[in-house]
Amino acid sequence: MSAVTAREDCEALDAADPLAPWRERFVLPSGLVYLDGNSLGALPRAVIERVRSTIEEEWGEGLIGSWNAAGWWDKPFALGRLVAPLIGARDDEVVVGDSTSVNLFKVVMAAARLRPGRRTIVSDPDGFPTDLYMIDSAAELLGGYEHRLARPGEGELERALDDSVAVVVLGHVDYRTALLHDMAGLTATAHRAGALAVWDLCHSAGAVPVALNASEVDFAVGCTYKYLNGGPGSPAFVFAATRHLADARQPLPGWHGHARPFALERHYDPAPGIARFACGTPPLVSYAALEASLELWDGVQMDVVVDKSRRLSGLLIELVERCCDGRGVELASPRDPARRGSHLAFRHPHAHPIVRALAEHGVLADFREPDLIRFGLAPLYLRYADMWDAAERLARVLAAAPWTDPHS
Amino acid sequence: MSAVTAREDCEALDAADPLAPWRERFVLPSGLVYLDGNSLGALPRAVIERVRSTIEEEWGEGLIGSWNAAGWWDKPFALGRLVAPLIGARDDEVVVGDSTSVNLFKVVMAAARLRPGRRTIVSDPDGFPTDLYMIDSAAELLGGYEHRLARPGEGELERALDDSVAVVVLGHVDYRTALLHDMAGLTATAHRAGALAVWDLCHSAGAVPVALNASEVDFAVGCTYKYLNGGPGSPAFVFAATRHLADARQPLPGWHGHARPFALERHYDPAPGIARFACGTPPLVSYAALEASLELWDGVQMDVVVDKSRRLSGLLIELVERCCDGRGVELASPRDPARRGSHLAFRHPHAHPIVRALAEHGVLADFREPDLIRFGLAPLYLRYADMWDAAERLARVLAAAPWTDPHS
Repeated sequence: MSAVTAREDCEALDAADPLAPWRERFVLPSGLVYLDGNSLGALPRAVIERVRSTIEEEWGEGLIGSWNAAGWWDKPFALGRLVAPLIGARDDEVVVGDSTSVNLFKVVMAAARLRPGRRTIVSDPDGFPTDLYMIDSAAELLGGYEHRLARPGEGELERALDDSVAVVVLGHVDYRTALLHDMAGLTATAHRAGALAVWDLCHSAGAVPVALNASEVDFAVGCTYKYLNGGPGSPAFVFAATRHLADARQPLPGWHGHARPFALERHYDPAPGIARFACGTPPLVSYAALEASLELWDGVQMDVVVDKSRRLSGLLIELVERCCDGRGVELASPRDPARRGSHLAFRHPHAHPIVRALAEHGVLADFREPDLIRFGLAPLYLRYADMWDAAERLARVLAAAPWTDPHS
Repeated sequence: MSAVTAREDCEALDAADPLAPWRERFVLPSGLVYLDGNSLGALPRAVIERVRSTIEEEWGEGLIGSWNAAGWWDKPFALGRLVAPLIGARDDEVVVGDSTSVNLFKVVMAAARLRPGRRTIVSDPDGFPTDLYMIDSAAELLGGYEHRLARPGEGELERALDDSVAVVVLGHVDYRTALLHDMAGLTATAHRAGALAVWDLCHSAGAVPVALNASEVDFAVGCTYKYLNGGPGSPAFVFAATRHLADARQPLPGWHGHARPFALERHYDPAPGIARFACGTPPLVSYAALEASLELWDGVQMDVVVDKSRRLSGLLIELVERCCDGRGVELASPRDPARRGSHLAFRHPHAHPIVRALAEHGVLADFREPDLIRFGLAPLYLRYADMWDAAERLARVLAAAPWTDPHS
C-alpha cells in the first residue's frame, strides 16, 4: 500500500517524477485523463514541425531529390536504429515499414523456412486475432502446416511442443489482461524443442522491459502507434536476429528489399542485412511523424519508464479498489507488477456503458469484449494525479448504478 | 508539326490551357522544370493544411476518438471512392492501403485462387521488377505454379496462353518506354484463354485513360505518389471487380479486412465487399496527404488531362528532335500519342551524365538503365513553356559534348 490518501499526495509524486518534464513535450487536451495510449499514443509536439518541414521542404522543394538529399532511402533503417535500443536489439537488426500484420506474415514464414521439415506453427489462442489470421494464412501457404494453439503457462505450451514444431509465435503482453509473458524463458522453451521464437511487441515496446537479444529471440514485430507515439497507423517494425539475416527468406520480396534496387534486375536477390525485410515504397509522411516521436526517447532510461509504469498501475489498482469497493469491479490483470504490461484491465458486467460514461467524465479508457475496462498507462506523459482523477471519476460513475446500457 | 517556333508560342498555348489554373494549386520551386512527376508528383498546396489539421486536431485533440469522429475507419474506402472515377471503377470496388508490391501479392494470389486447377501465371518480362518478384513469390507459395514470361504484342502473349494459365499480370504503361498497352484487348485475350487479368496502373492512373470496368478487368493495383500526387510513398490502391468480391480470398487476412474487426473472433471472416482487401492498421498521416491530393481532381475531366498529356509529349518530341538534331538523342517511346503514357523516354549513350547536367540547368528528369533519359509530363501542373525550356536546356547540355561521365 502506498501513502496516498489525497490528490495532493499524487501531486507530490508528480513533483518528484524524473519523467515529469516529458509531459510538456506532448499535446494533451486540458482536463482530459487520457488512458488510451495503449491504443493510440498522444501527439508529441515535435511531430507538428517535423511533418510540416518534411512536406513543405523535403517534398515541396526537394521533390524527387529528397530520396537522397533528405535521406528518404535510409529512413526505414534510421527509424529501425531509433527503435532498436528500446527493444534490446542491435542497430542493424530492425527495419520500420508496413503494418504489424504484414510484418508478422513475413517473419512467421521466414522463420518456418529456416526449419524445413517441421510443419507446425504454435501460437497463443489469446494472441491478438490478426496475428492468428496471418499465421493461419502462412500455415496454409507453406503447404498445409498445422497451426496449433497453446497458452503459455502451466505447462500447456511445453506439452504442445514436439519435433514437428518449426515456430512458436507469442505476444509479449496480452492485449486484454496485460499479462506479461516470460520472453527469455519461453524462447528457451521453444529453442529446446528445436523451434524458433517470434514475438509480437505491440503492447510492450516503449513501456515494459524488452530484451530481444538477451532473450535470444529469433524474430519480432511490433507497432509504433501505442507507447511509441508514432501517430495513427504509423508503420510497424521487424526485428530479425543477426544470426538469421544471411539465410532468412521472407515471402514479400519487394524491390526495397533487393540487394540492388536500382539495377532493376529480373530476379530478386535479398539485401544482405535487415533490409531484406523491407518491401515496397514506404509512407514517408507517416515516417516523419514517427521519427520525431522516436527521437523523444533520447535521454530516457527504460528502467525509469518501467518503474513509473509499475508505480502508476500499482497506484491505480489501489485507488480503484479503495474507491470502488463493493461496486463489482474486479482486477483482471496480474497483481504482481513484474508480471504485467503497462495497462490494466478490470472486469465489470457493465463494462461497455461504464467506459462510455467515463468518457463523458473526461476519462478516456476502452472496452474490450466481453466485460473488460482497459486503462492504458503511458509513463512518458501521465501523472500520478491522473490515477487519482481516474479512480475518483470511476467511483462517481459507478455510484450512478444500477447500470443499463442505452445502446444495447 | 505544331506551329511552335518560339517560347512565346508555348506561352500562348498555356494561356489557352483549361488546366492552367491547376498549376497554382501546387508548390513548384521557381525556375525549376520538374519532369519527374512520374516518380514523385509535386506537392498540392491543400496537403499542408490537411495534414496539419489531421495531426493537431484529429490526433492531438481527438485522440483515439478520431477513429470514429474523424472517419479514420472509413478512410481506406473514402480514398478508394476518390480514386475510383479516375480509373473507371465503381465507388465500392477500390480500397487504399499498403504498398503496390503488397497489393499485387494480394490480387495475384486472389485471382489465382479463383481459377483452381490452372497453375500458371503469365506476366510481362518488361514489367516493373517488384511485380515480377511478387509474382515469383506468389507462384511459389501457391504450390509450385509456373511464372511464365511473355511480352504483349506481336502475338507473343497469345502464344503463351493455354488452359494452364490462371492469371495474366500486365503493366498498363511500360515504366521505361511509356508504351501503353491495350487494356481491353489484352484483357479479352486473357479471358478467351480462361484466365483472369490483373493490371498494374502505377504509370497510368491520373495521366492516361483507364477504364477498368469497361475493359472487363478483374483486378488492378496502382500507386498514388506519381500522377496522383499523394506524397512520397503514399499508400497504394487495390481494385477488384464486383463480380469477384464475394469469392476473392487474399493471402494477407488482417483484422481491417474482417467482417467484424472488433468482435476479435478466432477465425477470419472476410468483409463482404472490397474491405476484404484491407489488412493491418493503415498510416493515417500519409492518408491525410493523399486525401487532399485526390480531392484536387474534383472538377477535372480526365479527357482534358489526357489531351494535354498528349499535346505536351508531342510538343516535347518535336522540340527535342528539332533542337538536338544530330546529337545522338533518339526517341524510345511510341511516336503515336495514343500508344504511349504520360512520360517520354529518349535514348542516348551518355544518358546518365546528361540527366545530371540537366539537373544543374534546372530540369529534373531521370535516368533508367542502361541509356534512357525519362521525362515525366504531369498535365495538372506542367506548362507548354516547360517543354520549350526543357528542350532548349537539353540542347545546351548536348552542345557541351563530347560526353564523358565523371562518375563512371
